[in-house]
Amino acid sequence: MIRERHLFGPGPSNPYPEATRALASPLLGHLDPEFLRIMDETCEMLRTVWGTSNARTLPLSATGSAGMEAAFVNTVHPGDVVVVAVNGLFGQRMTDVAARCGAEVVAVEHEWGQPVDVDRVLSAHPSPAIIAAVHAETSTGVRSDVEALGAGKGDALLLVDAVTSIAGIELRADDWGIDIGYAGTQKCLGVAPGLAPFTIGDRAFERRVEKPRSWYLDLGMLGGYVGEAGVKDGGKGQRTYHHTAPTAMVASLHAGLTRILEEGLDAVHARHRAAGDALQSGLQDLGLELFAAEGSRLPELTTVKVPEGVDSAAVRRELLERFDLEIGAGAGPYAASVWRIGLMGRNARPDAVLLVLAALKDVLGRG
Amino acid sequence: MIRERHLFGPGPSNPYPEATRALASPLLGHLDPEFLRIMDETCEMLRTVWGTSNARTLPLSATGSAGMEAAFVNTVHPGDVVVVAVNGLFGQRMTDVAARCGAEVVAVEHEWGQPVDVDRVLSAHPSPAIIAAVHAETSTGVRSDVEALGAGKGDALLLVDAVTSIAGIELRADDWGIDIGYAGTQKCLGVAPGLAPFTIGDRAFERRVEKPRSWYLDLGMLGGYVGEAGVKDGGKGQRTYHHTAPTAMVASLHAGLTRILEEGLDAVHARHRAAGDALQSGLQDLGLELFAAEGSRLPELTTVKVPEGVDSAAVRRELLERFDLEIGAGAGPYAASVWRIGLMGRNARPDAVLLVLAALKDVLGRG
Repeated sequence: MIRERHLFGPGPSNPYPEATRALASPLLGHLDPEFLRIMDETCEMLRTVWGTSNARTLPLSATGSAGMEAAFVNTVHPGDVVVVAVNGLFGQRMTDVAARCGAEVVAVEHEWGQPVDVDRVLSAHPSPAIIAAVHAETSTGVRSDVEALGAGKGDALLLVDAVTSIAGIELRADDWGIDIGYAGTQKCLGVAPGLAPFTIGDRAFERRVEKPRSWYLDLGMLGGYVGEAGVKDGGKGQRTYHHTAPTAMVASLHAGLTRILEEGLDAVHARHRAAGDALQSGLQDLGLELFAAEGSRLPELTTVKVPEGVDSAAVRRELLERFDLEIGAGAGPYAASVWRIGLMGRNARPDAVLLVLAALKDVLGRG
Repeated sequence: MIRERHLFGPGPSNPYPEATRALASPLLGHLDPEFLRIMDETCEMLRTVWGTSNARTLPLSATGSAGMEAAFVNTVHPGDVVVVAVNGLFGQRMTDVAARCGAEVVAVEHEWGQPVDVDRVLSAHPSPAIIAAVHAETSTGVRSDVEALGAGKGDALLLVDAVTSIAGIELRADDWGIDIGYAGTQKCLGVAPGLAPFTIGDRAFERRVEKPRSWYLDLGMLGGYVGEAGVKDGGKGQRTYHHTAPTAMVASLHAGLTRILEEGLDAVHARHRAAGDALQSGLQDLGLELFAAEGSRLPELTTVKVPEGVDSAAVRRELLERFDLEIGAGAGPYAASVWRIGLMGRNARPDAVLLVLAALKDVLGRG
């Protein structure tokens, strides 16, 4: 029996039907001219959702976490000072990944649920090589002010995790001074997990590590196959084989992006905002308390405190078993005390809001 | 318009219909009990096709090339001597990947098209930490004797690339003494590209790098999520979140493996052998000359010399444009002088043999 789940957790979300259909389309070879066209168009559409004109904008052939690794492994020279704003699990992970690349990590710790304190981060070190932050913390449902970090970064490179923000809230990589960014496909882009949309500007690329520890994620080598060539000569240039691209996943991302840009990026953002606002109001009407700091709440991913005396896991299990409805546990120290409810991509819809509120009300015996 | 291609190149091949259908099934969350069951069963079926009882047998969340990187990054300590048998592009790539991990690489070069010379490889260094070789060289269509390398490896670990051999020809990781192996999904497994089936034995795992340069491919951390837990307690244990698994791809691999094991691994091997034999005879009947050394030819991937005076790329283009039929160029120095024809997974069929021979005959104006 095939289970049909409502994926209202922190991701993956249910893909757009267009993206699912593309996954099952006849497979193309990774050097087929038809596939190269799809790849070029995908890179171009990614530029739009990133808000960038970076030539090197491409889907890496692995999930969002590999995007984080690619970001650091290509830009951290041994001994580089990397200031990391830590206000949740993914900021924490950045410190681990950066340290493995040989960085001298300066972690600026925040209380979870709070946005990044821009002044503290910018003053943490006089001359960092890189300042890194998470735009939308998936672990806490908090948005941070990346634009302000960009305005104050000085000579440092700004490295941003946009896994949960891309195509869900405003993201303007070039205007905000993002030098290196990575994302995932399985959240607001409405595509299955498996690719990491990535962008890197010229300034960061020029400072890159010539021969990074990772062969698979070496941007210097990847440029011969996608992105770079696609921009410079309209895709007519020679493509160099690097690795076999996951062609079905790229075709699916292409379909998801096409769907999003047909609807219009502003309209998609507005849809996420409307769903998030309605959900957050509805949860409070049920007497529940939100976790993320007011004013910094993500519309696409809502965190809510588990009421006193309620067994968090039992509620999630009942939602799954009775209604095929998945919500997420909290992350790290909040595993048992917070729920994470994502209405992302296809699921940023009024009917999804109604359903999750009704299901929670039923299971919690409220109202 | 959707192009339906016959993917008779070196991979990806056309997936089994079961694998395609699974890609488009309703998506599951990466911590859903249903998905964890699918993941556990996938790991168990992978053990069968690898011929191993290794607890740590799992699909890595990236393509086969990332499998190569995971193999070296987790096992090479700085300064370790790594003997690499190089008889094609993928052996060559191993030397690059191993060097980035800090290995002292001893490359044992061979003429392309020839199998690995076991004696030369085993005597290349008195006490290597690792001996690495490619079982089925995708660049040349050659099979090498991994079993003999395993028999003579001594205290070294044997690291094997099985990207093009897995589920196509006999592969018995445990019997042959393979300590670390990686593969891809897009060849004889008959699934789209996007995952790297991986296996590592206890001896290699105990000698692993405690904190490898790669966070994404850190087997010590991955063990908490798949493989290890799946074996040790039947999947009932606590799963630790590491990264979001590409759930659609894993479901597709599960379906492909189920298909293969229903048919029977021996029958699948026999089908590849029959298709390869018929293709290789047919090509010679057309007056073409095979490239790989006799006695070491892979049935699933045939290399054939481009006849004198024939434009290799023009023939491939015509096959694609007139018959939607993809064959591969040669690799590296043989790009223009060799074709690579793969009949892998679903395409290891008598009708595929007929079609590719008839198409080549037509385009070459032979017969």
